[in-house]
Amino acid sequence: MLTVSQRATVLPASPIRRLVPYANAAKARGTKVYHLNIGQPDIATPECALQAVRENRVQVVSYTDSAGNLSYREGLVEYYKKLGIGLEPRDIIVTQGGSEAILFAFLGCMDPGDEVLIPEPFYANYNGFAQEAGIKVVPIPSSIENDFALPPVEEFERRITPRTRAIMICNPNNPTGYLYSQGEIEQLGAIASRYDLYILADEVYREFCYDGHKHFSVMQLRGLEDRTILMDSVSKRYSLCGVRVGAFICRNRELVAAVLKYAQARLCPGTYSQMAAEAALKAPESYFKQVYDEYVARRNFMVNALNAMPGVYSPMPKGAFYTQVRLPLHDADAFALWLLEEFEYQGQTVMIAPASGFYATPGLGKDEARLAYVLKIEDLRAAMETLAVALKRYTGR
Amino acid sequence: MLTVSQRATVLPASPIRRLVPYANAAKARGTKVYHLNIGQPDIATPECALQAVRENRVQVVSYTDSAGNLSYREGLVEYYKKLGIGLEPRDIIVTQGGSEAILFAFLGCMDPGDEVLIPEPFYANYNGFAQEAGIKVVPIPSSIENDFALPPVEEFERRITPRTRAIMICNPNNPTGYLYSQGEIEQLGAIASRYDLYILADEVYREFCYDGHKHFSVMQLRGLEDRTILMDSVSKRYSLCGVRVGAFICRNRELVAAVLKYAQARLCPGTYSQMAAEAALKAPESYFKQVYDEYVARRNFMVNALNAMPGVYSPMPKGAFYTQVRLPLHDADAFALWLLEEFEYQGQTVMIAPASGFYATPGLGKDEARLAYVLKIEDLRAAMETLAVALKRYTGR
Repeated sequence: MLTVSQRATVLPASPIRRLVPYANAAKARGTKVYHLNIGQPDIATPECALQAVRENRVQVVSYTDSAGNLSYREGLVEYYKKLGIGLEPRDIIVTQGGSEAILFAFLGCMDPGDEVLIPEPFYANYNGFAQEAGIKVVPIPSSIENDFALPPVEEFERRITPRTRAIMICNPNNPTGYLYSQGEIEQLGAIASRYDLYILADEVYREFCYDGHKHFSVMQLRGLEDRTILMDSVSKRYSLCGVRVGAFICRNRELVAAVLKYAQARLCPGTYSQMAAEAALKAPESYFKQVYDEYVARRNFMVNALNAMPGVYSPMPKGAFYTQVRLPLHDADAFALWLLEEFEYQGQTVMIAPASGFYATPGLGKDEARLAYVLKIEDLRAAMETLAVALKRYTGR
Repeated sequence: MLTVSQRATVLPASPIRRLVPYANAAKARGTKVYHLNIGQPDIATPECALQAVRENRVQVVSYTDSAGNLSYREGLVEYYKKLGIGLEPRDIIVTQGGSEAILFAFLGCMDPGDEVLIPEPFYANYNGFAQEAGIKVVPIPSSIENDFALPPVEEFERRITPRTRAIMICNPNNPTGYLYSQGEIEQLGAIASRYDLYILADEVYREFCYDGHKHFSVMQLRGLEDRTILMDSVSKRYSLCGVRVGAFICRNRELVAAVLKYAQARLCPGTYSQMAAEAALKAPESYFKQVYDEYVARRNFMVNALNAMPGVYSPMPKGAFYTQVRLPLHDADAFALWLLEEFEYQGQTVMIAPASGFYATPGLGKDEARLAYVLKIEDLRAAMETLAVALKRYTGR
């Protein structure tokens, strides 16, 4: 019998995706759904990026360099230089979104059956790329008890096997909003050195660090240049999610040459997409300041509102635009479904991302959910009021 | 010791890529290099596609649907309908180039270790995607003796094992320019039915069929709707190589749902890219007529010139814009290198694609090369003159 592959069958659809039909059904009933579940910012893309595409005069939309346009990579070198990260254009392979950078890192550093250690909860799509590359994600639980700080070194060490090839982090973290400190990054560097591992860092929320906290990149670790890999994206930085432009960045020439073979197989990143991304490098400081202020205000509003709800606990996120909260119930998946299927308050409800999908260890995070603060304050106000009422009414604990 | 993955190490860089530094060195010496090695058309993109991007008024470049914009998929349904292929939007997943459609097909139909039968010579990048997906390509040799027609059914049958899951073709063919007839496609259909296999067809050169030959798609095979998969791309059809827009197309709902999980993991195809691709659907008939006439003229000129060279044989390609020729020498790789490193005629040389990279069976195609007719006739004239002189002078047979 003709069948779908076993791997495609077992790959879980994300728990958020599974809720989408229920959200659509709620909307069809006329209910207003506030989306606290997604990472799509409502922030405008910088005008310079939009303009570059509108004013382009390309006549033949040709293949570009498989590593990405040189002028764009040179621009990226300048961008990273300002952050204290010294690079050359040949250290950079422009990718189709941060997604492809992750896949390339897995393919280049690991063989099928190899293992990568990742603190959980983690961005659920890592599972998809790990499965495509045939590698195994070994989760290291972090806990809301200490606001999702880096797990102790021993927790990493006791999971290291002969197949362990890398440690991977997301910093600032999606889903938790936690920002790893320089000290924590240096701890990871020490483990990587001791056990001869790569460090893979997804730093796509770098621009979103609050309260004076500075981002410390794995690329700033000294003496570990051969083993540190940066997986980046312009999606959140410039509200350019739809261009699908990211980057695989590493100073290990042998690894970059290896990854380039995969980049060549898929030919190149997009022409228009790179135009927008390159032009966005010229976005003025005022753009980031405005975006930053907006997110800080939203975060403060949402976290305060959440912590005012009986039994709810939200850490104060130091980065990104998510918080992962503890709810006063036992099954956030069931609650998320109930919100869409049965609940309504003044014609409104909210969609949340149950946290179980962000944990690889079964049973963890059942009473947690990720909430994104990507809505305007007035919408967040309505959403928080609605959530508070829902928690009072919910009897399915 | 920190190492690159074994798989990345063994993945061969394409033989064409390996020649690029030598071509660049020749150019640096002031030699004019005619590129017969590449599939980048010099044909203008339809104005309607360019204009759609220039006139766009998007303010937030957001994620699109993971399966691609519905309006674009509806437009594709109309496009295929005119070709006699009945589809619904839900049969289509818009991909990042034909490349991603191939990777998705491998991931959805096959598990690691499974096998796909492919007539060789074949597009070398299939190897990259097969390796990423952990599947095995089993080549079925075709021969220049009969202009690269479909190998006999028995050649497929005797390579079928319990791990065989699919047959894959490229039609019209890159690198050979061969166009499989309806009868040949039906033979493949019969094998697929008998042995319960998928048929994967890369039909990205569909618009380029010459001399009154009609393209017959695997999607037109009746009764095999569950097992036929189309991997398409707008790159060649509209000279839109740089937008990276393709499609995975199948009427098997279970398989499409499975592949959609991989599409969701990488979020979506590009916003601007889909704008261009959707607008290109409105390209006038006159555009294709002009392109068609141009390619026929180029093909006729080049094939005649090649067959006039002593010891050279080129089939008359019925499709695409390549021909795979036999050269009067034993090592086309060495000849291609010599052309770039040592040869020059009136300040000119040519770059060709040695065919060895298109064969998986070691030793095959050593005296063959793929030549693309994507240059203007005046350039092709100079290139053919240069190649003829080179063949006379070459002593390294």
